[in-house]
Amino acid sequence: MAYELYYWDGLQGRGEFVRLALEDAGADYLDVARTTDGSEKMMNYLKGSQAYPDLPFAPPFLRDGEIVVSHVANILHYLGPKLGLAPDDERLRVFAQGLQLTITDFVAEVHDTHHPISTGDYYEDQKPEAKARTKAFLAQRVPKFLGYFDGVIGSNPTGEGWAVGGAITYVDLSLFQIAEGLTYAFPRAMASLDSRYPNVARLRDAVGKRPRVAAYLKSDRRIAFNENGIFRHYPELDEDPA
Amino acid sequence: MAYELYYWDGLQGRGEFVRLALEDAGADYLDVARTTDGSEKMMNYLKGSQAYPDLPFAPPFLRDGEIVVSHVANILHYLGPKLGLAPDDERLRVFAQGLQLTITDFVAEVHDTHHPISTGDYYEDQKPEAKARTKAFLAQRVPKFLGYFDGVIGSNPTGEGWAVGGAITYVDLSLFQIAEGLTYAFPRAMASLDSRYPNVARLRDAVGKRPRVAAYLKSDRRIAFNENGIFRHYPELDEDPA
Repeated sequence: MAYELYYWDGLQGRGEFVRLALEDAGADYLDVARTTDGSEKMMNYLKGSQAYPDLPFAPPFLRDGEIVVSHVANILHYLGPKLGLAPDDERLRVFAQGLQLTITDFVAEVHDTHHPISTGDYYEDQKPEAKARTKAFLAQRVPKFLGYFDGVIGSNPTGEGWAVGGAITYVDLSLFQIAEGLTYAFPRAMASLDSRYPNVARLRDAVGKRPRVAAYLKSDRRIAFNENGIFRHYPELDEDPA
Repeated sequence: MAYELYYWDGLQGRGEFVRLALEDAGADYLDVARTTDGSEKMMNYLKGSQAYPDLPFAPPFLRDGEIVVSHVANILHYLGPKLGLAPDDERLRVFAQGLQLTITDFVAEVHDTHHPISTGDYYEDQKPEAKARTKAFLAQRVPKFLGYFDGVIGSNPTGEGWAVGGAITYVDLSLFQIAEGLTYAFPRAMASLDSRYPNVARLRDAVGKRPRVAAYLKSDRRIAFNENGIFRHYPELDEDPA
């Protein structure tokens, strides 16, 4: 039976981290909100209309038969072994999930660059605060996060260029999305990505060349980056490289 | 061998969610940063001085022999079965981890009430923005999160008053900390907690009466809430109940 992915129609958002894993693995899945009546079906979950414990707080969530899994990191932890995108070794598997949760925190900070005061208000109503938050984000947080991931990849003793162990994992697919998303949102600031974070850049290129990922990126299943997602390009927020 | 918990000395912070699980289970553990040279030992991890893959991004992290686990939700997912604080059933175990990740997001939003612009600057340098963010947080986000958790507890078919299944899990211990922390930080706004979220309030009381938790809360191992932690009491940020 196909996996059912539930995520808002029309944006990559947090759902994209799950889509990339499903696509890279060639898994059979349904992007439910993009099917007829799919958004309504998703909303029924969010209204709490389903029986306990099928009560996700927010999309994305994934249904696999009887099991409903919510939150990106939890979904990837669940899917990883089934899709061949998680290490077998427990020590590395736990490390991979720790990296994914660091990505989760990073993504929340990306979101808050355009919504520093209230997710209930428009970006246009919090522009000066967004500018201040983005400035600190690009100067301090991006170097901290990308520097960390670059260091992890560089110190991986397998030398294969992935974050965890000798083969690709869901973490690498998410790091690809981080690199692509940041470059879309902040092209000026990220002009230095390849030189400052060469391991991240090589990993991004290696992921992008994987046949199933490359085919996905060219397909209409890949929604373009836009200003409804996590990574938004507002030129006035961009800065020169720190 | 004792578990080693690594977290900043002098504050509850995110480490407290792990401490509560270890304490409730009566587990043998060392709060490393509170031992001689412990903070230095922790910093060696954060500087990347340990061998791959012992490279946590930030505290808290937990060492269990050969395994280093980072991020609260990952630690609790790892410890839960070992401490008898996770359901056996996979469907419920996955649900518990989803709830914990919702708590993770909630905690990040609590943090950002006092640091909406930059974690690198002092609260005093972002007070107007903190006031605006807190206003939205108390009016919109607290009802959304606490209402959700209250609904989950209320719809648990076991009727035992816990969030997941018929016995206490790490999720309940974290919800206790959420309720206590919000009440410390925002006593005016949270005056309505018990009437608006009765299931959360009953769960909080039930956790607080557990013998090991009660003994822990009275011990000097429980650091008092303070303004270095996640939950900070700045009277000027508090509001009347929404």
